[in-house]
Amino acid sequence: MSEFVKGLEGIVAAQTEMSYIDGEKGVLEYVGIPIGELSAKSTFEETVFLLWNKRLPTRSELDEFTSELRQRYELPAGMEQRVTSLPTNAEPMHVLRTMVSALGMHDAQPNEIELDRARRKCLNVLGHAPTIVAYFDRYRRGLPLIHPDRSLSFAENFLYMLNGEKPTATMARAFDICMILHADHGLNNSTFAARVIISTLSDVYSALTGAVGSLRGPLHGGANEGVMKMLNEIPSVADVESHVMGKLERKDKIMGFGHRVYKAKDPRASDLQGLAEQLAKDTGNEDLYAKSHAIEQIMEREVAAKGIYPNVDFYSATTYHCIGLKLDLFTPMFALSRIGGWSGHIIEQLDGNRLFRPKAEYIGAHNAPYTPIDQR
Amino acid sequence: MSEFVKGLEGIVAAQTEMSYIDGEKGVLEYVGIPIGELSAKSTFEETVFLLWNKRLPTRSELDEFTSELRQRYELPAGMEQRVTSLPTNAEPMHVLRTMVSALGMHDAQPNEIELDRARRKCLNVLGHAPTIVAYFDRYRRGLPLIHPDRSLSFAENFLYMLNGEKPTATMARAFDICMILHADHGLNNSTFAARVIISTLSDVYSALTGAVGSLRGPLHGGANEGVMKMLNEIPSVADVESHVMGKLERKDKIMGFGHRVYKAKDPRASDLQGLAEQLAKDTGNEDLYAKSHAIEQIMEREVAAKGIYPNVDFYSATTYHCIGLKLDLFTPMFALSRIGGWSGHIIEQLDGNRLFRPKAEYIGAHNAPYTPIDQR
Repeated sequence: MSEFVKGLEGIVAAQTEMSYIDGEKGVLEYVGIPIGELSAKSTFEETVFLLWNKRLPTRSELDEFTSELRQRYELPAGMEQRVTSLPTNAEPMHVLRTMVSALGMHDAQPNEIELDRARRKCLNVLGHAPTIVAYFDRYRRGLPLIHPDRSLSFAENFLYMLNGEKPTATMARAFDICMILHADHGLNNSTFAARVIISTLSDVYSALTGAVGSLRGPLHGGANEGVMKMLNEIPSVADVESHVMGKLERKDKIMGFGHRVYKAKDPRASDLQGLAEQLAKDTGNEDLYAKSHAIEQIMEREVAAKGIYPNVDFYSATTYHCIGLKLDLFTPMFALSRIGGWSGHIIEQLDGNRLFRPKAEYIGAHNAPYTPIDQR
Repeated sequence: MSEFVKGLEGIVAAQTEMSYIDGEKGVLEYVGIPIGELSAKSTFEETVFLLWNKRLPTRSELDEFTSELRQRYELPAGMEQRVTSLPTNAEPMHVLRTMVSALGMHDAQPNEIELDRARRKCLNVLGHAPTIVAYFDRYRRGLPLIHPDRSLSFAENFLYMLNGEKPTATMARAFDICMILHADHGLNNSTFAARVIISTLSDVYSALTGAVGSLRGPLHGGANEGVMKMLNEIPSVADVESHVMGKLERKDKIMGFGHRVYKAKDPRASDLQGLAEQLAKDTGNEDLYAKSHAIEQIMEREVAAKGIYPNVDFYSATTYHCIGLKLDLFTPMFALSRIGGWSGHIIEQLDGNRLFRPKAEYIGAHNAPYTPIDQR
């Protein structure tokens, strides 16, 4: 029996052909293609195809994949009513988790796990999830629902359903890039949770539901909300220095910095930074970007030597804010994208599955008697 | 970086003070007390207290714990309507997963994870889950719902809500023992999933929802349904020999035999065997028990030398059938009990948490170009 390794740090728990990460050098590749190439040239739909098929699609393959995805923008009969009967004060991540789970009850054969069937169920969730989030957000705001438009891309359609108007090209592209950047990242906690769950040969809905539940944690996807809250706490750029130094002195965590894997700047943060800067300018949020940038410069001066750099959450906060997303939709956005990665991992796990069943080390008492209750 | 270990077999991923398992000797203890002692003398309520507190309760502690649990038999306002608007053909495990998730939206502070708060949320789910299962079963059968009765124990109340009449003492005790036996079992897959999810500091509902999703897999909790299906396939005791030998020759899996952990008879199977025999006699199911017993004898003769023995699923199938449970409620019964164990592990994980974040070994291509689409 091995020694107990807290958090399984350093333990190899799966093989993958999807993401390659070199944390020392700050490299992230999907199927061997540098993330910067994909964020510059690809689309979210193409990136998901890449992750699921381990190669880029031909034009006809991409057309077919996109068409299948768009057919799933509309929810199954009965689901709209389910979304619009939820408590309006529910947190969107609790909603998404519950409704992804509910999709399993609206699939006549939810438990099919043959690879091609499982893949179609992944596509169901990928297609339906944005509609769930947008419907819930409009329902809670008391606005009429905007039904999906199959002529639009994944990114365009989501922003359209959310805001009731088609996004500008810059907005849609920025959102699309966020979706590309967040799609996969090795064996992060939610991806690992999805693989653990599917390894009982359960079903795609169970695995994706578990992954959504994991992602909402503040040590994982929930961190991007934390960044925005921190930015909101700082009145102006002039206050950044004292705010950050105060936190560092108190050894408070600076949200959006540091990552278990990266000891260099997260390559996704670099891509997002330019995007955040441009969007901030376009939407009159220059001050927000300036605060972010000032935080990064102070952190560079103070703690970069310790390998603490901005992570993907840091500039995604500014980006999402500029796109007009409310704070509690930040983590659901991460989820919409990561469904692509989770799904790829579910397929990889099913293809040559072995049940995850590690050991626990028992550290309690032995040979304890069952003492009758009146003698305790 | 360690070598890739498929399924994390042999890797110690957590420490626990709850179950001690010696797979070679066929020993299972909860907090040091042999499982046979607990199944003979304890109750499910007391066993859950034991698992959560690492000691047996005094009488007043047990009274208080029981009272708090009984206060939670009734669902939060709005949940009954949610359960009775589900598709009637949904599989109960999909229902339970979705409704445990939905409970998070009926809690004003679902994300509290301070230990005492987390524990109360565990108690919420433990109290509400039987009601969810019983309501759904009666709703799908077109029967009026039976509201819970706080004067009854966990086991009695569940069978009462399901069947509309109070169970016999033998029935209730048999069910209670099943609940005791299934409550915890080291780092099984669903328990591990719960710990992985809560380690992002997500929330109790997310972790328990993920665990339910894991348990429904046929390599885990779903196996007890498989045993019953196999028993149903065999017309009579006289057919057991040819049926089992045929399966062995074809190298088909015999459901309910073999366990990753035990290389001896699962001690829970021993406890259940006596129970199943008695219940079968009481309920006119002698033939079912006789078939089970004949299977065990053939397996003992043929494969015991390879360390393949009956596991907990084997005799729980007969037991649940004799109690009058429909096949697709077998795995939910496992879940009702295991919520006790999952919850204990969630508390243990939160107390000294470290994020689960293992590594994936990348085995794909490197330095791949982003080829423009018309050149693919």
